[in-house]
Amino acid sequence: MLITDIAEMDNRILLGHGSGGQLSHDLISGLFVKYFDNPILKDQTDSAILKIDKDLLAFTTDSFVVDPVFFPGGNIGTLAVAGTVNDLAVSGATPLYLSSSFIIEEGFGMKELETIVRSMAEEAKRAGVMIVTGDTKVVDKGKCDKIFINTSGIGELLKRHKNISSGKEIKTGDKIIVNGSIGDHGMAILAAREFLNLSSDLKSDCACLNLMIRKAMGASPNIKFMRDATRGGLATVLSELTSDREFGLHIDESSIQINEKVKGMCEILGFDPLYVANEGKIVMVVDKDDAESVLDALRADELGRESTVIGEIVDDHPGKAWINTIIGGNRILDMLAGEQLPRIC
Amino acid sequence: MLITDIAEMDNRILLGHGSGGQLSHDLISGLFVKYFDNPILKDQTDSAILKIDKDLLAFTTDSFVVDPVFFPGGNIGTLAVAGTVNDLAVSGATPLYLSSSFIIEEGFGMKELETIVRSMAEEAKRAGVMIVTGDTKVVDKGKCDKIFINTSGIGELLKRHKNISSGKEIKTGDKIIVNGSIGDHGMAILAAREFLNLSSDLKSDCACLNLMIRKAMGASPNIKFMRDATRGGLATVLSELTSDREFGLHIDESSIQINEKVKGMCEILGFDPLYVANEGKIVMVVDKDDAESVLDALRADELGRESTVIGEIVDDHPGKAWINTIIGGNRILDMLAGEQLPRIC
Repeated sequence: MLITDIAEMDNRILLGHGSGGQLSHDLISGLFVKYFDNPILKDQTDSAILKIDKDLLAFTTDSFVVDPVFFPGGNIGTLAVAGTVNDLAVSGATPLYLSSSFIIEEGFGMKELETIVRSMAEEAKRAGVMIVTGDTKVVDKGKCDKIFINTSGIGELLKRHKNISSGKEIKTGDKIIVNGSIGDHGMAILAAREFLNLSSDLKSDCACLNLMIRKAMGASPNIKFMRDATRGGLATVLSELTSDREFGLHIDESSIQINEKVKGMCEILGFDPLYVANEGKIVMVVDKDDAESVLDALRADELGRESTVIGEIVDDHPGKAWINTIIGGNRILDMLAGEQLPRIC
Repeated sequence: MLITDIAEMDNRILLGHGSGGQLSHDLISGLFVKYFDNPILKDQTDSAILKIDKDLLAFTTDSFVVDPVFFPGGNIGTLAVAGTVNDLAVSGATPLYLSSSFIIEEGFGMKELETIVRSMAEEAKRAGVMIVTGDTKVVDKGKCDKIFINTSGIGELLKRHKNISSGKEIKTGDKIIVNGSIGDHGMAILAAREFLNLSSDLKSDCACLNLMIRKAMGASPNIKFMRDATRGGLATVLSELTSDREFGLHIDESSIQINEKVKGMCEILGFDPLYVANEGKIVMVVDKDDAESVLDALRADELGRESTVIGEIVDDHPGKAWINTIIGGNRILDMLAGEQLPRIC
C-alpha cells in the first residue's frame, strides 16, 4: 500500500527514503509525483519518454548547492528550475523538459522539502516546462549540507538559432544589452547568511527568463548571442565573450544598473558588483539596427523592464573586454580569478 | 591564458574551482574537456546542441553518492556512467548523450578526480556514448562527503519499443530472465568500507549493459520489459513489476545465481541477497517462445554469460511476486521496507 500524501509521512527524511524500496516509493508518489504532476512522470519508468518535433536539441545540466537553502526571492528549488531553464533559453532553445535529482541529508525536514518541491513545481509551470524524471539519494547526517539539487534540461532548437550559444555571428557594431540591475542574487544570498546578521530587504532576482527571451527573439532574427550572468557575474560573461575572438568589446560602466543596496553592501564588504552572481540577468548581443526593437520587446516583459544597452562590439583590442569606468578611467575585465563568494547557486 | 593540462593545476580542489571564473575554466579545459573529448563538449556553450534522428527520446537522471568512492570493480565515475546508460538501455533506448555534474568537497585530491574522470571517459567510450555537457560545484570542507556525481542521459527510442519500460505488453507465460549472479555490487561496497576490515576479493558487477541489451533486442522483437536491479535488489524489481498489475509472477529461488562469497557475507551479516544492489544485472521479461533465442544472445555477450530463466508470469495471485524457496516453502517478495545498506550507489 503506497502512501500518497505527505501528511502521512515521517516529518524527517530518513535514510530509507533513499533506499529504492517502500519509503522511496512513498516519497515519490506522495511528494514528487503529487507536485510535479504530469503524465510522463506518472509512468515512473526508468527513463521519461519524450517526443521532440524539431531536429535539434539543447541539453544542459546544473547542480545547486546554495547556502542558505531558503533566501529572500526564492529557494534552492526555484533556483534549480530557473537556472536550467535559463541555460536552455540563452542557447536560443525552447525549454521543454527537466529532470530533478535530490541529494538530501538524513534528518532534513519533510515540510522544508515539500516547500522546495512545491516551488519547483510552480516555477516550472510558470516557465511552461515539465519535470519528467527524477532521483533521490539520502546520505547520513553530516555527509552533505541539507540538500543539493541537480536539474538537467532538454529544449527544442530551431536550426537558424544554432549559432546563438557560440556567438559565431557576432560582428563589430553589435550592441550589448543587459535586462536590468546586476548583483542582486549574490548580495541577497550573502545577506541571508546567518552569521552576517544583515537586516536587508535585498531580494534575489532568481527567475525563469525563457518567456522574456522568446519575446526578444520574436522582435528580431538578429540576436547573435545570449548568456545568463550567474557565477562570475557580468564581468566574467563579457570576458568569456571576447576570449580568443577577433573582436573586442567596450562597456560604459555608467550604463550598468546596480541597486543602491547592492552598491552599498559591495562597498562595505569589498566586492566588485561586476563579478557578483545574478540569477535573472542575461547578456545579449544584437545587431545594432535591431537594438531598439529588442529593447522594446524586453521592456514589455516584467523581467526586462529595465533593459539597457551597456556597450558594443568593437574592432580594436580584439579578445579583450574594456570598460569605461565612472571615474573616467579604462580597465580590462578579466574572468573572476579566485572564489569571491562560494555556494551562491 | 588557460591551463590546459592537469599537471599544471593545484593538487587539491579549491573553492575557486567552483567559482565560474578562471579556476573553473582551467578545470574544465584541463580535465573534463581533455578526457571527455568530443566536438559537442568542446564548444563549452550553455547547452549542448544535439541532433536526434528518431522521433522518441528517453531521458533519465541519477545522482551517485557511493561510499567509498573507489571500490573493487569500479569507482563513483564508472558507476555514474553505467547507471545512467543502463537506465536508458532498459527502457529500450539506444543511449547517446550524457551530462555529468560534479559536487566536490574542497580539498579533494586532483589526482583522484582525474582517475574518476578518466574512468568515466573510458566507460562512456566502451558504451558508445558521449559526455556532452557538465557542471562543477565545490563546497567547503565538511559540507559534502568527497564527491557526488550526477549524470543525466538521452537516448533514441524506436516507437515499437516504447512500451518496454512500462511492461504494458506482459502476459501470462512470459519468461523472466536475469543475466547472472546477484548481490555482487552491494557486498563489494560493504566489504570495501574501511571499518569492516574484510579482506574479500569480491568485485562489483558495475558495467554498461547497453551493448548486451542490444544483442538481446536483436534476437527477439518480444522483449516485454527490462529493468536494472540496483537499489532494492532483484526482489524490489520483481515486486514493482507485479504491483497493481493483473498478473503475478513466480520465481524459483534455486535458479537464482549467487556467488558463494556473497552468500557467505549475507549469512554472516544478516542480509537477504535478493535485496542487495546490483549494478550490472537486469531483469527481462520475454515471450516464452523467444526465451531461448534471447538467452543465446545474452550469453554471447561477456556480461550475460550466466543468463538464466528464473521464473515466469502467472495468472494466479495477481499483483504478487511469489518465490519458491530452496528449503521448499513459498513467500511473497515485497519491496525493501527500510534502508538495508545506505550509499551503495
